[in-house]
Amino acid sequence: MGLRLGVIGIGAIGKEHTLRIEKKLSRAKVVAVNDVNREHTEAFLAQHNLSAKFYESGIELIRAQDVDAILVTSWGPTHEEFVLASIAAGKYVFCEKPLAVTASGCRAIVEAEMMHGKQLVQVGFMRRFDKSYRQLKSVLDSEQLGYPLILNCAHRAPAAPGFAGDMAISDSLVHEFDVLKWLLNDDYVSAQVILPRKTRLCDDSLQDPHVVLLRTKQGVLINIESFVNAQYGYDIQCHVVCESGTAALPEPSDVMLRHDGKFTRNIIVDWQLRFIEAFDVELQEWIDATSVGRVDGPSAWDGFIVAVTADACVAAKHSGNIEPINIPERPVFYR
Amino acid sequence: MGLRLGVIGIGAIGKEHTLRIEKKLSRAKVVAVNDVNREHTEAFLAQHNLSAKFYESGIELIRAQDVDAILVTSWGPTHEEFVLASIAAGKYVFCEKPLAVTASGCRAIVEAEMMHGKQLVQVGFMRRFDKSYRQLKSVLDSEQLGYPLILNCAHRAPAAPGFAGDMAISDSLVHEFDVLKWLLNDDYVSAQVILPRKTRLCDDSLQDPHVVLLRTKQGVLINIESFVNAQYGYDIQCHVVCESGTAALPEPSDVMLRHDGKFTRNIIVDWQLRFIEAFDVELQEWIDATSVGRVDGPSAWDGFIVAVTADACVAAKHSGNIEPINIPERPVFYR
Amino acid sequence: MGLRLGVIGIGAIGKEHTLRIEKKLSRAKVVAVNDVNREHTEAFLAQHNLSAKFYESGIELIRAQDVDAILVTSWGPTHEEFVLASIAAGKYVFCEKPLAVTASGCRAIVEAEMMHGKQLVQVGFMRRFDKSYRQLKSVLDSEQLGYPLILNCAHRAPAAPGFAGDMAISDSLVHEFDVLKWLLNDDYVSAQVILPRKTRLCDDSLQDPHVVLLRTKQGVLINIESFVNAQYGYDIQCHVVCESGTAALPEPSDVMLRHDGKFTRNIIVDWQLRFIEAFDVELQEWIDATSVGRVDGPSAWDGFIVAVTADACVAAKHSGNIEPINIPERPVFYR
Amino acid sequence: MGLRLGVIGIGAIGKEHTLRIEKKLSRAKVVAVNDVNREHTEAFLAQHNLSAKFYESGIELIRAQDVDAILVTSWGPTHEEFVLASIAAGKYVFCEKPLAVTASGCRAIVEAEMMHGKQLVQVGFMRRFDKSYRQLKSVLDSEQLGYPLILNCAHRAPAAPGFAGDMAISDSLVHEFDVLKWLLNDDYVSAQVILPRKTRLCDDSLQDPHVVLLRTKQGVLINIESFVNAQYGYDIQCHVVCESGTAALPEPSDVMLRHDGKFTRNIIVDWQLRFIEAFDVELQEWIDATSVGRVDGPSAWDGFIVAVTADACVAAKHSGNIEPINIPERPVFYR
Repeated sequence: MGLRLGVIGIGAIGKEHTLRIEKKLSRAKVVAVNDVNREHTEAFLAQHNLSAKFYESGIELIRAQDVDAILVTSWGPTHEEFVLASIAAGKYVFCEKPLAVTASGCRAIVEAEMMHGKQLVQVGFMRRFDKSYRQLKSVLDSEQLGYPLILNCAHRAPAAPGFAGDMAISDSLVHEFDVLKWLLNDDYVSAQVILPRKTRLCDDSLQDPHVVLLRTKQGVLINIESFVNAQYGYDIQCHVVCESGTAALPEPSDVMLRHDGKFTRNIIVDWQLRFIEAFDVELQEWIDATSVGRVDGPSAWDGFIVAVTADACVAAKHSGNIEPINIPERPVFYR
Repeated sequence: MGLRLGVIGIGAIGKEHTLRIEKKLSRAKVVAVNDVNREHTEAFLAQHNLSAKFYESGIELIRAQDVDAILVTSWGPTHEEFVLASIAAGKYVFCEKPLAVTASGCRAIVEAEMMHGKQLVQVGFMRRFDKSYRQLKSVLDSEQLGYPLILNCAHRAPAAPGFAGDMAISDSLVHEFDVLKWLLNDDYVSAQVILPRKTRLCDDSLQDPHVVLLRTKQGVLINIESFVNAQYGYDIQCHVVCESGTAALPEPSDVMLRHDGKFTRNIIVDWQLRFIEAFDVELQEWIDATSVGRVDGPSAWDGFIVAVTADACVAAKHSGNIEPINIPERPVFYR
Repeated sequence: MGLRLGVIGIGAIGKEHTLRIEKKLSRAKVVAVNDVNREHTEAFLAQHNLSAKFYESGIELIRAQDVDAILVTSWGPTHEEFVLASIAAGKYVFCEKPLAVTASGCRAIVEAEMMHGKQLVQVGFMRRFDKSYRQLKSVLDSEQLGYPLILNCAHRAPAAPGFAGDMAISDSLVHEFDVLKWLLNDDYVSAQVILPRKTRLCDDSLQDPHVVLLRTKQGVLINIESFVNAQYGYDIQCHVVCESGTAALPEPSDVMLRHDGKFTRNIIVDWQLRFIEAFDVELQEWIDATSVGRVDGPSAWDGFIVAVTADACVAAKHSGNIEPINIPERPVFYR
Repeated sequence: MGLRLGVIGIGAIGKEHTLRIEKKLSRAKVVAVNDVNREHTEAFLAQHNLSAKFYESGIELIRAQDVDAILVTSWGPTHEEFVLASIAAGKYVFCEKPLAVTASGCRAIVEAEMMHGKQLVQVGFMRRFDKSYRQLKSVLDSEQLGYPLILNCAHRAPAAPGFAGDMAISDSLVHEFDVLKWLLNDDYVSAQVILPRKTRLCDDSLQDPHVVLLRTKQGVLINIESFVNAQYGYDIQCHVVCESGTAALPEPSDVMLRHDGKFTRNIIVDWQLRFIEAFDVELQEWIDATSVGRVDGPSAWDGFIVAVTADACVAAKHSGNIEPINIPERPVFYR
């Protein structure tokens, strides 16, 4: 029968994950769902001929006897409560980012999990499951190019209609923060944020693009361009300069055309298409690891230090200074 | 519970498909297996904790009440019998290539299926399910480049230890024959085979490479290089020259390195890695279509005309002449 | 002072070569010109402030005492006479293609030159001087990939307004015929011409594209696509399949853009831009070799066997058969 | 006869320029040379059969009546004197970098030239004459991608045996400083230098790589990686992020190989090969402009502001702070 899952939050990502588990993946079943909108949720279940039971309360769903593990895909501010309740129930939980909306909330989850005595929490940083990032990590881990010294990264999206304030950092760069330390097996020590010339092609109140410079314990310089109104496409770049060579993140392949005086290849514009296979791998590996009682993916600790890093970047953006990133020693529990 | 499947032949590909269905895909289960080697098969089931029932006879498995559909992955010469038995039992059957070892065997299957009155058979030509071929077909079908006029294709493998005689045509080019007519929505009318300078890096008795030239009803010229001892990698190429531009099959992406005076990217060497995702898609789509009573993939008719085409190419290789490919009008049943 | 040159024929290519010698190259000077249109020619000289003397007759120019060497850039049918006269005068001569409009005319030049006892003639096949072809030849000559077995070449132009009959062979493919045997250090033995599906985007009376298959003495199969109404650009391709790898002719580099959902790079559309540096190198090397009494470039013999090859291809196009290319043994004089 | 040139300093670059002018370029002649080593110089002239007259003194050469214009290719610290003497003699002068070894020396030249009343000086920043930089500038100037916002550049060399202290800035990054402001039609306002993790593959006393961040008047952020012991090759990168797309400097093309499980293309290792054509274009254009009384290339003013920029970068490297780059308003004389 496989793993019996409960999904809290049947919005866009909750629906996608539910359908992914039911239609594409193996060895798990969605048996329970919870959402603030019951009518909407039951229409979704009916439309796809799904037999999951509806729960009025997320906490009730977490405690249900026939639910083996939980997916938290609800509104961000509710994550902390549901993750803590899952830990309290001793159940494995996969939580979409953010783990909690504050670093202290993340810290509380870390402490609860350590108190419980066993890892249960995985955070939805899907890039670690992307084939291209895995290919790049495999090259770096082999040390065939020596140590990494500099990373030049870009996170570009065609447009970001709802973005305001520091959302480019707290909402999208968090993926960079998680995947880059995983890529380097390293931790961050400081952040600087530079505001280059602004594009005219976005809301006047938004500073776009901006450049985040991170330093790691090993001294690696990471340069991340965040450009959420880059117009031309959804383009994730990562170039690593090592001691004896460089390595670039593979790009999605597509037909190479020669037409109209040009050699062209399409670039992905819709971000959902960029990591669609990574989401499949992420959830299947989570199901498989959960089934044998392991957490292999991004942990609560990872969620916590991403939150600390994002806070430091926001501070650096506003101060214009190089700000320290104070990450405590990684507990043995999370090694 | 999903589709209950029986697998006939638990060799390399039979094992792979069984594990694929059980571990990666959705909505199907292998409930029955048959193989000439019972001991070996039961060890495999035990090793992977699978609960499928072992049948001493493939025919018995086909007729079993709790088997909804059949996968034929046994030795080529047995395919025809098992496919015909599946049709007789009114069950959907997925048959790895070849559909039958002779064109007349394929023809017999076509006739049995038409007599039965409903399509049940799908042949394991997996390239149609490969993302890169689908990207290329989508460009061609859009006619944004006008009509296709010439195809330049290559099928290169690092080595082919067991290959002898005409196996390069009958064993590997059959995939080209299926996918190219699908790509073009066209049929073949003639074949010519040219034997270029031989490589010194293979068994002396083998002519390698050779070039197959096919013409289609629409006049398209298809140039297929078959080079099964090409040393450097497993490399599948397809360049289409159209009226106002060209389109090339995307290549598998990988890390781009700069190292030691060179810009490099790995090329796949192991053929199994090239189409591994295509196999997943092929079987999941087959499961989904079978579940709703449809055959969407390569049909018995496709298996038949591939066999006719391979026979004409073998004849052309031996005669040195342009040989006709006599493909009957496609029956309405298969449109 | 450098080499004193006389140019016969001040049409498009004659003007270009004259300006090239005067404005970009070293160690030569155009001191004499001849053309059927005196007025036009003197206007050209005046416009560029050139002091060359006008001759009413090409023969007279060839014989002039202050002319060290000759460039023949006049109308094709006049080439044979001027080249023969240059040989008779014992002067080095650079003749744009064709060397003569018939193979027998070329043969007559070969015989006159051998009778004279010293090589004097170079034919204007500029591709041998192109950096990308030289890079490719250097790879092949190194034998790092083993022997070449198959060449896949394409000669594509956006449009060919004046082309009719067999001009695609006699006017443009002659460059392929010269450069490919130079690349391979080989000779041709037979030709086949295949007429694929026609493009709708050209004059109805023209068969375009067509494919020429050549075989060499070493057995190499050469596949040349000629597509003179390919619309999208002027694109010269050459892919060599060797025993342990493949090598592709470098393409002209240009800015790589990411814009509007696409990764793009411009392709040259105007053929004159593709080989503009090759023309410079060709003439400078000719000047340098002539100054020291050598002929290093394509010889009269090369001009002759290109003519023989073109004749065989035209015959093959009309017969539909594989036609022999009867090239006599290369005389010691031309080795 | 063309321009009569005097070359001061017959070391490596002096020899190359002399041979370039004599053997490859048009409309100029080296009639005079000066060097500290007479014997060595006369041997060079004899070896190449050159008839230039040797002068014991550079100043004397500058004043010689039959010398129309000067090339200064001597040891850096002597440049200022020879350029000032050329201005005093009212002669056009091409000076290899540096224009002078201090910013105040450059300033003195600027003032002398303005006092003289006419531009005479060109500095040897050859990248502006490189085809790939010109292709990139043409894209930027067209504004087809909107305004540039961020530049990511890299200057990588395989090794730098003699480099010490701040030579990476003062000796090699000066080329970046000149070409980037030319590319952007902009000026610099501040500099920051970041020292990333050091490579182990160089002398311990050298900090390599380092990253220079420049800001321009328009707010553009320029990120230049300087890595002079990058091992793998001589690699010059420039990626421009604009409002609606990105543009990358074209890379030198070379044969694309498929061999041994890899797709590869050679990267230039010897820096002299990277800009060899740019040197030809630079000098021919200088000859042509000088012949008609113009200075089209990098001016004394450009040499001056490059020196000011380099000084600011050195200061920023040592202070760790963002340092201002105080460039005076460009005089009308230099617009």
